[in-house]
Amino acid sequence: MNQVRLTGTVRIVGAGLIGTSIGLALTKAGLDVVIEDASPANVRLAIDYGAGRQPKSDDSPSVIVVCVPPDVTASVVSSELARFETSIVTDVASIKGQVLEELNQSGADVSRYVGSHPMAGRERGGALSGRADLFYSRPWVISAHSNSKSAAVAAVEMLALDLGATPIRVDPFEHDRAVALVSHVPQIVSSLLAARLIDADASDVSLAGQGLRDTTRIAASDPKLWIQILGANSNEVAKVLAALSKDLTQVIAALENVDATGSLATIGDALSRGNRGVEQIPGKHGSRNKHYEQVIVMIDDQPGQLAKLLTEIGEIGINLEDLSLEHSPGAQIGLVELSVLPNVQATLIDALTQRGWRIAG
Amino acid sequence: MNQVRLTGTVRIVGAGLIGTSIGLALTKAGLDVVIEDASPANVRLAIDYGAGRQPKSDDSPSVIVVCVPPDVTASVVSSELARFETSIVTDVASIKGQVLEELNQSGADVSRYVGSHPMAGRERGGALSGRADLFYSRPWVISAHSNSKSAAVAAVEMLALDLGATPIRVDPFEHDRAVALVSHVPQIVSSLLAARLIDADASDVSLAGQGLRDTTRIAASDPKLWIQILGANSNEVAKVLAALSKDLTQVIAALENVDATGSLATIGDALSRGNRGVEQIPGKHGSRNKHYEQVIVMIDDQPGQLAKLLTEIGEIGINLEDLSLEHSPGAQIGLVELSVLPNVQATLIDALTQRGWRIAG
Repeated sequence: MNQVRLTGTVRIVGAGLIGTSIGLALTKAGLDVVIEDASPANVRLAIDYGAGRQPKSDDSPSVIVVCVPPDVTASVVSSELARFETSIVTDVASIKGQVLEELNQSGADVSRYVGSHPMAGRERGGALSGRADLFYSRPWVISAHSNSKSAAVAAVEMLALDLGATPIRVDPFEHDRAVALVSHVPQIVSSLLAARLIDADASDVSLAGQGLRDTTRIAASDPKLWIQILGANSNEVAKVLAALSKDLTQVIAALENVDATGSLATIGDALSRGNRGVEQIPGKHGSRNKHYEQVIVMIDDQPGQLAKLLTEIGEIGINLEDLSLEHSPGAQIGLVELSVLPNVQATLIDALTQRGWRIAG
Repeated sequence: MNQVRLTGTVRIVGAGLIGTSIGLALTKAGLDVVIEDASPANVRLAIDYGAGRQPKSDDSPSVIVVCVPPDVTASVVSSELARFETSIVTDVASIKGQVLEELNQSGADVSRYVGSHPMAGRERGGALSGRADLFYSRPWVISAHSNSKSAAVAAVEMLALDLGATPIRVDPFEHDRAVALVSHVPQIVSSLLAARLIDADASDVSLAGQGLRDTTRIAASDPKLWIQILGANSNEVAKVLAALSKDLTQVIAALENVDATGSLATIGDALSRGNRGVEQIPGKHGSRNKHYEQVIVMIDDQPGQLAKLLTEIGEIGINLEDLSLEHSPGAQIGLVELSVLPNVQATLIDALTQRGWRIAG
């Protein structure tokens, strides 16, 4: 984390995954962070974890970040604007148009409000899942509106930058169109796919592999949260789904007449278009830590080898950002995947090679 | 790995992920394993990795495992049956009905053939991705047919058991019905979803998060392989897709008239049914190593702590099966997730606690 841009106290309302992660990163960066939540237990956990301090009666935050569920976001933003009369307020809800419309109707001083949406998350929610690097290299949508003060926009942009994220200015309604495609449609498609399993024989489902698990992972998401999101963004989601439905109808017709001329081509086309679609997704596919470089070390599959490797990396003086062990009981070697900052990757490879370690790939 | 059931030489044709993983496990178990591949480089890699030895002219395998792509599976099985006149032959192709039909038409001695399908895989293919524990606790479909000798069925079942898998006897055509639901439909749905991204603005796709990445991961699969699979199982796949298409049409109608009575209920119902569907999938959702237990240790986020922990685990005398590090630069603690065999979990927790380590959860 480089020099911090924000000054003063940052107040976070909502000590879940996002709020706690923001608190961790800003505290680490040296800012005074206040964290609050409807649940005192959540707050204590987040504070123990290093995400900030308890509020005091004379707090005067420069920036307030509202990290609560979408259906209460507008009302919490509105009450924060009223309670702290000079603070800049942002939120992190995954829909932006409807929150803004509700705020406009509430009579709140929206000139100090700029909505935002960090494009980051994890399967596990809650304070203990918080990570200071959750937003690192991630897009962070800044959704200014026609009445936003430029100082408010600048403050929210500094917040994103201080968290290592990449601020992207997107109009609130354009944002909702984009997330329909990249977030809301995948959610409902995953749910519809998983629903096919309800009436299946248990013996059939017992054959499930990783592909089914990945495609249906988000089908386990909270329906209450997602009714809010899909209901608030229904037009945009319906448009994308209608196009998908048309493609699906063609594939079904091809499968039902698989020997007809052109049927295999239709199926192959759908698969190839899927390939091309995936290629549009930026970054290493599925990688969470694309800001780190990997070094894979082959170690003998015997006790003490991993401890020895880590001790030597400590001697070399390089900081590991992440580590995962590819352990196969049968293989005569194990693979240790080390994640390091890009500027030390070559040094680490050289030093380990000199010490006799085998580097893969 | 307990006492091995198979005897004699096992011959593996195809040194990809599956073939290499089988070779690693059987070699480890003490069997004589021959591994062959159309690519000499693949074979060398697999042999270096510990998956078996080069073939000799006088090999007389008891069991042959054909691990080649589906479109050549029947012809390779047929030629292996002809070349080794007493060997039991199985294959691992992901469709079973059509392979059997082709073999029946080929005039091969199918009494010595029993198809099978291990329900295991990885995102990365190739010999170097091989893992001896790939099949551990995984279902392994044994698809006997009306002309299979019982000795052949028994041999293939012993193969699955020797690999730690759970053999499940499923008729070849029933198998194809089940995998339509749990594998083939997820593939085409993932492809259709990813295809929506082709014409999207780059700025929209730049907002992609983990949900889109997971749901579209398998859309990157090889179209050539999947045209073979979907074409060979078209009737079963079409039936499931038609039901999904009907649900999709209802959701689209609800989204297009979101304020109408019942629309939110229709959307909520689709989401809730998705929840129920996911719950049908056995085991910890998304877990690959469900035969291990996890111990999460909280360590101070400072150099040398992980090496110290691993050194002490070595002193305690417990073998780690896997390890992953949850490293957050901002948090004042790091989480180390240790995977161990269930029977040593309690011992490890006790010993680490006594030595002053903090265990999470």
